[in-house]
Amino acid sequence: MKAGLALHTDKYQINMMYAHWMNGSHQTKAVFEAYFRKLPFGNGYAVFAGLERIVNYINDLRFSEEDIAYLAKQEEAYDAAFLEELRTFTFQGSIHAMKEGALVFANEPLIRVEGRIFETQLVETAILNFMNFQTLIATKASRIRQVASNDILLEFGTRRAQEADAAVWGARAAYISGFHATSNMLAGEQFGIPTKGTHAHSWVQTFRNEQEAFDIFAKVMPDQVTLLVDTYDTLASGVPNAIRTAKNLEAQGKKMNAIRLDSGDLAYLSIQARKMLDEAGLSYVKIVASNDLDENTILDLKAQGAKIDTWGVGTQLITAADQPALGGVYKLVERQVDGEMKPTIKISANPEKVSTPGKKEVYRIISKGSGKAIADYICFPEESMPPEGGKLKLFNPLHPYMRKNVRDFDAIKMLTPIFVDGKQVYDLPELQDIREYHNEQLGQFWPEYLRKLNPEIYRINLSEQVWDMKQRLVAEYMEEHVQEPGED
Amino acid sequence: MKAGLALHTDKYQINMMYAHWMNGSHQTKAVFEAYFRKLPFGNGYAVFAGLERIVNYINDLRFSEEDIAYLAKQEEAYDAAFLEELRTFTFQGSIHAMKEGALVFANEPLIRVEGRIFETQLVETAILNFMNFQTLIATKASRIRQVASNDILLEFGTRRAQEADAAVWGARAAYISGFHATSNMLAGEQFGIPTKGTHAHSWVQTFRNEQEAFDIFAKVMPDQVTLLVDTYDTLASGVPNAIRTAKNLEAQGKKMNAIRLDSGDLAYLSIQARKMLDEAGLSYVKIVASNDLDENTILDLKAQGAKIDTWGVGTQLITAADQPALGGVYKLVERQVDGEMKPTIKISANPEKVSTPGKKEVYRIISKGSGKAIADYICFPEESMPPEGGKLKLFNPLHPYMRKNVRDFDAIKMLTPIFVDGKQVYDLPELQDIREYHNEQLGQFWPEYLRKLNPEIYRINLSEQVWDMKQRLVAEYMEEHVQEPGED
Repeated sequence: MKAGLALHTDKYQINMMYAHWMNGSHQTKAVFEAYFRKLPFGNGYAVFAGLERIVNYINDLRFSEEDIAYLAKQEEAYDAAFLEELRTFTFQGSIHAMKEGALVFANEPLIRVEGRIFETQLVETAILNFMNFQTLIATKASRIRQVASNDILLEFGTRRAQEADAAVWGARAAYISGFHATSNMLAGEQFGIPTKGTHAHSWVQTFRNEQEAFDIFAKVMPDQVTLLVDTYDTLASGVPNAIRTAKNLEAQGKKMNAIRLDSGDLAYLSIQARKMLDEAGLSYVKIVASNDLDENTILDLKAQGAKIDTWGVGTQLITAADQPALGGVYKLVERQVDGEMKPTIKISANPEKVSTPGKKEVYRIISKGSGKAIADYICFPEESMPPEGGKLKLFNPLHPYMRKNVRDFDAIKMLTPIFVDGKQVYDLPELQDIREYHNEQLGQFWPEYLRKLNPEIYRINLSEQVWDMKQRLVAEYMEEHVQEPGED
Repeated sequence: MKAGLALHTDKYQINMMYAHWMNGSHQTKAVFEAYFRKLPFGNGYAVFAGLERIVNYINDLRFSEEDIAYLAKQEEAYDAAFLEELRTFTFQGSIHAMKEGALVFANEPLIRVEGRIFETQLVETAILNFMNFQTLIATKASRIRQVASNDILLEFGTRRAQEADAAVWGARAAYISGFHATSNMLAGEQFGIPTKGTHAHSWVQTFRNEQEAFDIFAKVMPDQVTLLVDTYDTLASGVPNAIRTAKNLEAQGKKMNAIRLDSGDLAYLSIQARKMLDEAGLSYVKIVASNDLDENTILDLKAQGAKIDTWGVGTQLITAADQPALGGVYKLVERQVDGEMKPTIKISANPEKVSTPGKKEVYRIISKGSGKAIADYICFPEESMPPEGGKLKLFNPLHPYMRKNVRDFDAIKMLTPIFVDGKQVYDLPELQDIREYHNEQLGQFWPEYLRKLNPEIYRINLSEQVWDMKQRLVAEYMEEHVQEPGED
């Protein structure tokens, strides 16, 4: 695929740009916010990812001559002057976003895009595509991390990933959430993620027998010996042959790294293999396991006493198999009317889908006493934070008993300026720093919010002003659309 | 992402290449076959896709200086002469494959790769990544096509796709299986797929009210008017406003294309909207529906009498949400021993995972009488087809009552030469021709094999020679690995 992603967008974005341009309204200012309505996997949090990809996309956003020529052929018969406008197009808007690695929640803005309706509309599709996938995989990886505690986690999913970008950016998302390495060399090259790999069944099949295959591998790569022991029969052939190879290595003063199990009952096989290795004096040889693992199978295997040191996780992680899409949306929250910015709302018969109007900030409220997060607080940028008097009222208007007053807190602004008037103002952090930031983020939450099953629900509260605005716009809308009796 | 995909591979491929190179066995000839063991979604067939991507990948397969520099830094400390070998590497092997759009089945070779173990090992990961994803999406799209009969199908999934490649190549896979257009403009540009798009809720929200938004859209794009009617209230506001806009268009001699429903009860809303449009004399205005559709919801909606002409299908298709990975594998079936090619087998405690040894051909057996497919027949290349005497024995050794003799058939060779000794010998067909080929393929099967739920199982039979070889290698293996009493 060519490098340019300007046309990695839905046609309706181009059509709306064109319709605004024809209407003379394309310079109208607009504010969009990207968020999701429901956490994936029943998890208590999500891990924000995709920002680096978005920053590169915005910086590179130009329509090539090839793109313009393609647009000129469409059935919409776009005006030549519109295509000329696209030929010189660059993104001149502003973007605020969560930092990669941040713990984020439903119904809070993760990315805010401000600018002309022309440009804010264009970027919707790609921003959602990148944010949705990478946040999904980072969240899935974080769930796996929670159950694996201090074991080593390897991302092994490339062959089952949904095409190349998913493999490479998915490997990065997994690394953000604490995976230790990937098998994908392109991800290693592009992002500096450590890479790991051993050999396949085909290595064993190429030789006359398994012992020969193991011995040759150990001979040619004596410092990197992890042997796959299930090509024929794990306990009757693979492990005994691997032990002989390890003993030969010892005679040369070398130590075998590990054996790898890739099929069968991993609990039983790992326990037996551990015993055989230990009895042979090879307690330093680790056991790597792979084969359709996810957070549930890993937890089960650990509960069964499996002797596994390193987990190779493939399909279930890289496709987020139990929920392969995050439903992130991008909603207009303010638009310019007669020169002034006005909040706007999207009504829906489904109350959860009614959007929250107005450009908003997200503060993470951290108790000074415990250092732990109490709630995320969503308010308008002009509201002072901390509020005067230092007391913050957290309230859930639908469940009044969930009202709570908070004092002695730090309020951390979560949305960071990334672009201001088209100029990047944020230095993309090193991947190691993103991992560290993610770890710090985890440390700010009580374990109850982090557990894999039935986590405690973390509070996301609107300020009174935001809530009142939402109610007012809903009421205004209902007023305008009141039906006279018998109208239908 | 940079164009080169040489490192879009698992590290173990590079390590095995290195180990073979160190061992002097990297020129050893090998034959690999790619196949899957189980059809996805409980479907009766899969639709092969991914070949164009694979052909481009193989043709472009070079290690850049950046790649070499990256490899030189690995903990494996690859020998400089090995890296020099990679610097001049090109793929010199041969590839046979199914044609894109072919109906394919479990446990038959879809791609066969022959060459030096060095190169046949390297390409495994990318070939599986491309084949698995694109075949999965083409199959999912074909299921949707089966239930939509003659309705128009639009691929709308980009924002929920697993990153950019998945959106673009997924749109192409859907088009192969009979979708009519995509919203993704990059897919349109790269592959010539028709693109479709209307407007979003944000278009409506940008104006003072829905009527104004509709009227302006119709004014500026009078030949492309499809109006989204659910921003506020579909039947109380959206449809009546759209009807007024359509009437205004009529006054200018123009006809509105369609309205789009994107939420709520699509059966009820489409029936009501159809009635309202018809009563207004707008029976030519079509109804487009979107909102988490798949083959099951579409079938249900049709059963409920929904009045929907065009289906916009997003998340469920582009992620194959009910089974987001095809488990395609790539297995060594022959390798060179002392200058001669020998079949090889991978044993497994799970009988379904025992590989079928030897380089194989796939023939589709078509009855001359009915023109319909009877079975796929897998044999060695040296077996004559049709067999002498013209009688073909189809047998399932595990289920002897499924034995069947066939006469008066055509045997169509399914694997086509794509590369011979590194040179592309296959002209990639136009996408339109792939769609036609896919339609011809569907026409060769009785509807019982094609239905969405509980399809009839299509026969995939091994020749007696292939079956005997498999039994012989299993027996040889068991002989070699017999355990002496008390050995453990």
